[in-house]
Amino acid sequence: MSLQLVIHAPDEASLARARSNARNLLAAAPDARCEIVVNAEAVVAAIALRDPATDGLVRLCGNTLRNKDLEAPAGLKTVPAAVLHLAERQAAGWQYIRA
Amino acid sequence: MSLQLVIHAPDEASLARARSNARNLLAAAPDARCEIVVNAEAVVAAIALRDPATDGLVRLCGNTLRNKDLEAPAGLKTVPAAVLHLAERQAAGWQYIRA
Amino acid sequence: MSLQLVIHAPDEASLARARSNARNLLAAAPDARCEIVVNAEAVVAAIALRDPATDGLVRLCGNTLRNKDLEAPAGLKTVPAAVLHLAERQAAGWQYIRA
Repeated sequence: MSLQLVIHAPDEASLARARSNARNLLAAAPDARCEIVVNAEAVVAAIALRDPATDGLVRLCGNTLRNKDLEAPAGLKTVPAAVLHLAERQAAGWQYIRA
Repeated sequence: MSLQLVIHAPDEASLARARSNARNLLAAAPDARCEIVVNAEAVVAAIALRDPATDGLVRLCGNTLRNKDLEAPAGLKTVPAAVLHLAERQAAGWQYIRA
Repeated sequence: MSLQLVIHAPDEASLARARSNARNLLAAAPDARCEIVVNAEAVVAAIALRDPATDGLVRLCGNTLRNKDLEAPAGLKTVPAAVLHLAERQAAGWQYIRA
C-alpha cells in the first residue's frame, strides 16, 4: 500500500521544514499521499509565504483562522479543526510526522 | 470507534498549543478520549500556569519531575516516563500529535 | 510485542530531548527497539555534539547532509530521507514521537 502521511506544522519554522519534508517525500515516493496540516502561528506564515510546489498540500486549521480573524486565500484549503483532522487521518491508517 | 488522542508537549509554547488542541478536539468530538502528556521544560510550565479546563487531562513525566527535583501538585496526574507512556498508548491504538 | 519507537528530532533542542527520551525508554523497557531520526538543523548538532550512550541509535537524514554539504562521521548511520524513513517505520507498526 502506498504511504499516506500527514505532516503537522504549528509554527513558522516547522512549516518551512514541512514543505521541505513534503518535497522530499514525493521525490522519493511519488505515489505517496501527503497533506501539510497547518495550525496556530503557522497559519499566518502559510498565508504570508506562499510556495507553489506545496501549497496544494496545505490544509489550514479553521479554528485558528477564526481565532485570528483571518480568511483562507484562494489556493489554500481548510479543515474545520486541525487536531481533529490529524487524529482522524491516523485513525484511518495514515502516518504522522510533526515537522 | 471513538478517537483516542495523546497530545505531547515538551516545552512551554507547545503546552499552550496542546491545551488549545484539547479544547478544540473535545468541542468537535465530545466522545474522544484525550491526554496531554507533558515532559522536559513543559513540566515547569504546567505547574506554574494552571488551566482548570484542561488540567484534568495532563500527565506529567515522572522522570522530568525527579530530574528537576519537583513534585506534582494536587490536581495534576503523573506517569512514570512520558516516552514510555506515549509509545504504549500508540501501541494500544491511540493517535498522537506533538503540539 | 516489544515496543518499537522512532524519535524524531529536527532541531538542536529536540535532539537533546530525543537522546534523553531514548535513555529513559531503554531504562524502562530494555527490550524496546529505538531509533533517533535526525534531520534539518539537528543534523549539524548531532555531528557537533556526540553522545556515546545514544549515538548508535542515531539515523542522519541523507537529504539534509547533501543540502548542507556535510558528511556523516564514523559512528553515525544515515537514511536516504528522514521523512520517508519515519513514514515507513510507522507503516510497519512502529510508534512515533517528535521530541
